[in-house]
Amino acid sequence: MTTAEIASLVQGELVGRGDLTVHSGQTLERALETQLAFWERRPGVTKLPPTRAGCVIVDGRVEVDGRTAIRVEQPRSAFAKALRMMLAGRQPSTGVDPTASVHPKAIIGERVSIGPHAVVEAGAAVGDMSTIGAHVFVGEGAVLGKLCRLEPGCRVHGNARLGDRVTLHSGVVIGSDGFGLVFESDHYEKFPQTGGVEIGNDVEIGANSCVDRGALDATRIGTGTKLDNLVHIGHNCQVGNHVVMAAQVGLSGGVIVEDYAVLGGQAGIGDRATIGARVRLGGQGGLLPDKKLAPGGAYWGTPARPLRQELTRQASLSRLPRLIEEVKRLAARVRDLESR
Amino acid sequence: MTTAEIASLVQGELVGRGDLTVHSGQTLERALETQLAFWERRPGVTKLPPTRAGCVIVDGRVEVDGRTAIRVEQPRSAFAKALRMMLAGRQPSTGVDPTASVHPKAIIGERVSIGPHAVVEAGAAVGDMSTIGAHVFVGEGAVLGKLCRLEPGCRVHGNARLGDRVTLHSGVVIGSDGFGLVFESDHYEKFPQTGGVEIGNDVEIGANSCVDRGALDATRIGTGTKLDNLVHIGHNCQVGNHVVMAAQVGLSGGVIVEDYAVLGGQAGIGDRATIGARVRLGGQGGLLPDKKLAPGGAYWGTPARPLRQELTRQASLSRLPRLIEEVKRLAARVRDLESR
Amino acid sequence: MTTAEIASLVQGELVGRGDLTVHSGQTLERALETQLAFWERRPGVTKLPPTRAGCVIVDGRVEVDGRTAIRVEQPRSAFAKALRMMLAGRQPSTGVDPTASVHPKAIIGERVSIGPHAVVEAGAAVGDMSTIGAHVFVGEGAVLGKLCRLEPGCRVHGNARLGDRVTLHSGVVIGSDGFGLVFESDHYEKFPQTGGVEIGNDVEIGANSCVDRGALDATRIGTGTKLDNLVHIGHNCQVGNHVVMAAQVGLSGGVIVEDYAVLGGQAGIGDRATIGARVRLGGQGGLLPDKKLAPGGAYWGTPARPLRQELTRQASLSRLPRLIEEVKRLAARVRDLESR
Repeated sequence: MTTAEIASLVQGELVGRGDLTVHSGQTLERALETQLAFWERRPGVTKLPPTRAGCVIVDGRVEVDGRTAIRVEQPRSAFAKALRMMLAGRQPSTGVDPTASVHPKAIIGERVSIGPHAVVEAGAAVGDMSTIGAHVFVGEGAVLGKLCRLEPGCRVHGNARLGDRVTLHSGVVIGSDGFGLVFESDHYEKFPQTGGVEIGNDVEIGANSCVDRGALDATRIGTGTKLDNLVHIGHNCQVGNHVVMAAQVGLSGGVIVEDYAVLGGQAGIGDRATIGARVRLGGQGGLLPDKKLAPGGAYWGTPARPLRQELTRQASLSRLPRLIEEVKRLAARVRDLESR
Repeated sequence: MTTAEIASLVQGELVGRGDLTVHSGQTLERALETQLAFWERRPGVTKLPPTRAGCVIVDGRVEVDGRTAIRVEQPRSAFAKALRMMLAGRQPSTGVDPTASVHPKAIIGERVSIGPHAVVEAGAAVGDMSTIGAHVFVGEGAVLGKLCRLEPGCRVHGNARLGDRVTLHSGVVIGSDGFGLVFESDHYEKFPQTGGVEIGNDVEIGANSCVDRGALDATRIGTGTKLDNLVHIGHNCQVGNHVVMAAQVGLSGGVIVEDYAVLGGQAGIGDRATIGARVRLGGQGGLLPDKKLAPGGAYWGTPARPLRQELTRQASLSRLPRLIEEVKRLAARVRDLESR
Repeated sequence: MTTAEIASLVQGELVGRGDLTVHSGQTLERALETQLAFWERRPGVTKLPPTRAGCVIVDGRVEVDGRTAIRVEQPRSAFAKALRMMLAGRQPSTGVDPTASVHPKAIIGERVSIGPHAVVEAGAAVGDMSTIGAHVFVGEGAVLGKLCRLEPGCRVHGNARLGDRVTLHSGVVIGSDGFGLVFESDHYEKFPQTGGVEIGNDVEIGANSCVDRGALDATRIGTGTKLDNLVHIGHNCQVGNHVVMAAQVGLSGGVIVEDYAVLGGQAGIGDRATIGARVRLGGQGGLLPDKKLAPGGAYWGTPARPLRQELTRQASLSRLPRLIEEVKRLAARVRDLESR
């Protein structure tokens, strides 16, 4: 891509040469002449630091000293956009690897790539231009939209239905049985898990994360939602659109997470709890079963409280050892007054 | 299954027609005419809500308005039982997929199903009517009982011995090395892990959970125990019978969990700690190494305390900011008294 | 191995027969005549307990009653060393399984073992004497050093570079995309993840753990570092040498962990935080983004505090309910004094 093309793509102001070609992105420190970098201004720094980058996307009025640069309002965002465009050209080769097991009754779209030792069972449907990596399993009846990317070793059971442009990283499991038990006098019996999983468009799920199928109804994940690695989504959870969950978050059964909520790493949510829209829950925060976090707020702690309140609690706890001493001294003084 | 057959199976009182046929289960709201549903009465509601379900399992004296229903004491349990029976008829096709690698010296029982690209090594034994999914690995010398179900992509190393009717969901790892280290002046050496894993009958283990082999002796999981997704069982743990662990629970090495204990999601247990029989430990609770939780109690927090005590601590902490103010005012009043 | 050979290997003092042969190790309680055991003296016990072990490695002046024993200073360490030597003789058979997919342009070293249904893509390099288990994926361009051991079902993406003697347990994912997002008015776009993963020599990573690739630069794990199961290492983390992380630890993006740090199970570290050298962080401890833990200290809690301070906080909290009562009584007494 030429620097002029990038400037046009990100709607930025080009400074310097428009005919330079860059083919990938890198940090300012490590970029070479054929690479694009970006730089976000820090307070008090008015000059772009030294770099070998062929072109740098910068913000504001920073001095670029004759180097080729593109001025925008959001350099990180513009850089990401340019890099996505460069990578979009690099399609994996299409076609079905001869070692893959694709059932004759599977429905395979156009320009699909299926990697070595992948398994696509009968009645499964894979949308156009999707990529099925090595060792991927797509079970009987599963439906995948267009342009899905299933990285090596992920498993999509037959009860799952994925939208377009869904990315599943290695080791992801979609549609495993939910954890439904019935206690019968002295042991547990299984509550059969016969529901499905419905995943919207543009969802991305991190390595080794698990999304259980619903017990009877479906587990749902909305459009544009992003889950990090090792996340657990229990049966019948209803996760909204554009939700973000950091690594190792766990949702028990029937949890509702509304649109644009953000859950910090290792947060844990109890059965049937509700996370309101645009809630931000801090890392390791915990919500008890059936509780609700009101929309829009920031929360932290176990059990989760409004962030301000939780910080006040923590600060007051730090003062407690001193308070205990103070009360002791105060008691002595009162005793002294009483004995007068 | 006919409604009369279901009533007989769950020992319930049939109301309405006994000749209707239902072939699956669904929630009351979503059930169709050919489906079974269940309904648990809520306080103040005396009438079964509208539904298209062919038959509903209900409790108590609820009015069913001429619809076909079955009266029992525990509708959820009875529904689960009926549904298990309906599903039992649907056996997966048996036989070994031509792409599976089954060693000639593996011992394969009768009516076993082995899926595409599965690997069963020499000397491994798979019991009758077991199902080995796609991409499953069963290592040299591993022993599986009858009617086991290994979902696609789980790994059973050669040191493992599973009972009958054990279900492993996708991505489960049984018999990986324990985390045993010896510090040698400036680096760690491995303490060799040569023990095994012994898993009892009717155990179910959730997706991407891991059970490490013992260091020298075995890691054990008792009969009827159920683990949810992403659970970690360290080397030499001794987990009893009918234990329940929710998702993302972690047991360090040598932990003892006695019968019927229930561990909430993300609970973490330190080395060689003991969880007494029938203990209930709340989500995210933590137990320090070598500590014990007495049988039968409810516990919560990190470090785990009796639930009542933990709730009192949390409630008192909420009052602390106000207490600090009170002590300040009290000190002023004492100063005032002293200056008189 | 003979008992004389073991004594020589561990530089211990042989007591009894030097010509006995043992072929494996076991606990003192379970060892048979052909097995080696070890025993660490406990206070007040002067005699080696009964055992059928052919030879026991012991410490100090313990009475061995005519049994064959080897006296050393660190029995556990010496036992581990002897056991490692016994196991070193048992190499897996080498060669490429006929069902493996090894690209003709992959570079395979000498005496490499590649298991059934493994995939090694073009341009990947596997060092001498490495073992690639069943269902392992090694992506295009990945580099593995000598004597690496990749257990069944682990995935090494093409951006990864592993040193010598690296062990990856089943289900490990190396080089999956980092969790990089850019919010664009009403939805998230991906910040492309194009960096790599660099792993040093003698690293061991537990089952189902994940190490994400860097966004632009690399994620790094130093020499001799050991990770337990289900650990998450986010993009661009820089983990030093000889670091230990227990199971289910999670590092967000850009975290620095310096040499010899030890992280307890389920600890969670925020973006760009720093764990100083030789820090010990207790289980379930949490560190906020951008925070630092000074080298050498012990820390616990969320947010992590120096261990002493955290224990004082917890102890003071236990006294709080009583303190509230005390202040109430004190207030009454002050009121009483004021009314005189």
